[in-house]
Amino acid sequence: MVTFADYSFLERYVNKELLAEAQQKVTVARQMLLDKSGAGSDYLGWLCADKLLCDENIADIQRCADTLRSDSDVILVLGIGGSYLGSRATIEWLASKNHNQLNSPEIHFAGNELSPAHYHHLMNICEGKRVTLIVISKSGTTLETAVAFRVFRDYMKRRYGCQHHKRILAITDETEGLLRALATSQHYNSFAIPNDIGGRFSVFTPVGMVPIAAAGIDIRALAKGAITAQHELLSLPFSENPAMQYAATRHALYQKGYRIELFCGWDSSMMMLLEWAKQLFGESEGKDEKGLFPASACYSTDLHSLGQFVQQGPPILFETFISFLEEKADLSIPVDQTNSDQLNYLCDKTLGEINRMAKDAVIQAHRGGDVPVCDIVITRQDAFSYGYLLYFFLLSCALSGYALGVNPFDQPGVEQYKQKMFKMLGKPGFDK
Amino acid sequence: MVTFADYSFLERYVNKELLAEAQQKVTVARQMLLDKSGAGSDYLGWLCADKLLCDENIADIQRCADTLRSDSDVILVLGIGGSYLGSRATIEWLASKNHNQLNSPEIHFAGNELSPAHYHHLMNICEGKRVTLIVISKSGTTLETAVAFRVFRDYMKRRYGCQHHKRILAITDETEGLLRALATSQHYNSFAIPNDIGGRFSVFTPVGMVPIAAAGIDIRALAKGAITAQHELLSLPFSENPAMQYAATRHALYQKGYRIELFCGWDSSMMMLLEWAKQLFGESEGKDEKGLFPASACYSTDLHSLGQFVQQGPPILFETFISFLEEKADLSIPVDQTNSDQLNYLCDKTLGEINRMAKDAVIQAHRGGDVPVCDIVITRQDAFSYGYLLYFFLLSCALSGYALGVNPFDQPGVEQYKQKMFKMLGKPGFDK
Repeated sequence: MVTFADYSFLERYVNKELLAEAQQKVTVARQMLLDKSGAGSDYLGWLCADKLLCDENIADIQRCADTLRSDSDVILVLGIGGSYLGSRATIEWLASKNHNQLNSPEIHFAGNELSPAHYHHLMNICEGKRVTLIVISKSGTTLETAVAFRVFRDYMKRRYGCQHHKRILAITDETEGLLRALATSQHYNSFAIPNDIGGRFSVFTPVGMVPIAAAGIDIRALAKGAITAQHELLSLPFSENPAMQYAATRHALYQKGYRIELFCGWDSSMMMLLEWAKQLFGESEGKDEKGLFPASACYSTDLHSLGQFVQQGPPILFETFISFLEEKADLSIPVDQTNSDQLNYLCDKTLGEINRMAKDAVIQAHRGGDVPVCDIVITRQDAFSYGYLLYFFLLSCALSGYALGVNPFDQPGVEQYKQKMFKMLGKPGFDK
Repeated sequence: MVTFADYSFLERYVNKELLAEAQQKVTVARQMLLDKSGAGSDYLGWLCADKLLCDENIADIQRCADTLRSDSDVILVLGIGGSYLGSRATIEWLASKNHNQLNSPEIHFAGNELSPAHYHHLMNICEGKRVTLIVISKSGTTLETAVAFRVFRDYMKRRYGCQHHKRILAITDETEGLLRALATSQHYNSFAIPNDIGGRFSVFTPVGMVPIAAAGIDIRALAKGAITAQHELLSLPFSENPAMQYAATRHALYQKGYRIELFCGWDSSMMMLLEWAKQLFGESEGKDEKGLFPASACYSTDLHSLGQFVQQGPPILFETFISFLEEKADLSIPVDQTNSDQLNYLCDKTLGEINRMAKDAVIQAHRGGDVPVCDIVITRQDAFSYGYLLYFFLLSCALSGYALGVNPFDQPGVEQYKQKMFKMLGKPGFDK
């Protein structure tokens, strides 16, 4: 499953008082979550993975996904922020970052940018194929997603005429908002987004699970992992609890003056998960002039770009490594009798083993250079472990936010630019 | 071409003395580059874009690329760090981030990670297609690239037998190193990497230009842009010089206490360029406990993930926006008579225009929230402007490094982990 490999390393960077204080704050934070006594406690629906991912919900989602899979060559998923990051991260980790070249149906994400190029490209891809649209928005008013939905609704009308509504699935508020109204009037199939779960915590709702299931991923195993994590991480004591240890570590390092958390995935299939984690932590903690700046890197790749800064730049960052112990498929290094490239010393190892040794070397070198490294290790690259990992991060983030003294479930700072933007664009009601 | 849209905004964040000092340092720095009197002045080959990209070199590269293009369905480019970032960034910007689904030959980058999954995927892709290998390494000993070259050399032998060497192109040191020796003994075609140019400054050498030309990009126009930038930016006075203004701005903000530069591309085709910029600035500046931490984001996409932190997190970051005034192909918002999504107010604008208005709104909102925004604007998404932009960044980085008082052309901090890694892996000579 998930281990926080070495909590004791922290003693090297942080004195005992700070460490004890962090441990104490995180312990209190967990109780606040269990009691629903903290800020934003109306948004704790994600905590009950066992309810969200109960057999009935899983069966509904799987049924829908089976239909989508048999009716579609291409599924376009329209959504932004929490409405695409979780599912895209999961598909890249568990299927492949090259899913669309390897498997069917293709899953393309759109409605998360304003670049015309991506639209033209998607239209090309859809040419001659059976297309289904999944549109995900709580309100229906988020600009990027709403614009994409208008453009692709128009496209679907041209392709499928009066039957086009049968190929559109809306995931939105249960009763309120523009998209719900549209879904009702146009007879789209739909799923509801629970009211007690914010966007960045929504991966276990239909927002995340429908596209994940549509990609052919085993959502039952993923659910089992998440529910196992819930049972373990909400009850295990600090000394055996990787989520509490991780939250305490990052809090102690923040208190010590570290300002950047560099999430480092040791496989390129993890990069979208790190984007998901950046939203999760950045939006939950980055308020009241507090919070760790979340950045990401792919290792070993980016040791050849950011490694210099990490080793010798200002001592304001720590790293959080994410790796697994077992790949889906490993590779041996072929023997070359001439040994002209002098690599025969590697022939008794697999590429996965070399990767893990590189990781261990970097932990030694960076900790030696006074860069703290958190080492999160996942047993294997499968759906169960991954479901566990997602819950681990959600919980770690909530614990971190409470330890920091902020409300981890709001995002008051994203409104300013929207107000100015809608005014500039001439949206009715924003013209003052 | 490239403008630094509004230098005067800086006065709001930085007092006059700091500003004058930054301007003075950058002016001195340019003179140091011209005189070759600064640290690392043996590595200034990149400064003379007109020599690197002279008609003869361009013709050689174009001739090679024409052959590669007619002989290949798939080109695998093996390289890491500066040996892939520049060319990949250019192809994504000027061709498409979906180049391989839209154009032929496909260009795939490998040898930049130790993940087995990517290898399996590439073998699948190569199946039944005509494959050419470009291997890029100054020394030939960089682990990731060397391992990939062994694996794919083995693959090429199986596919093409004793003719396989004709389908391998090496870009390496002119005379020294393992890869040069291999190229000579195996009769590979080859290009030389100049000795006076480091990896992260190598985009205008064959390292960058061969894969770029192989992707069908107009390298003559790109060269013209770079050479125009050289002539202008090395001679224009500070008041008219966007590279000097940008370098002075980031230096003044660093002196003021800002610690993170968040590069924000306003189009997803820019994301690899930002990875290239992160290596360029991070490796050049991140030493002696100095330097800005380079991070990146795609806007407007990541306003929905990092926007909260930027607006209300700790005031330690500034943003550097990169956008263009004109896309290769724009898109209109279709009219919907029912206006059920209430978006008809947008129908008189193109998507590109909406994107630019969003950018202007974010500049207002973030500067209003005391987040400095540097606004780099490129005329259009073409090869000439892009060549200009690359030179602009190379020069801005060198100026910034000298202003900071570091040698921008070395990377002493990347050795530690390599020593430990080679020892762990049992590499001969590293076993003590």
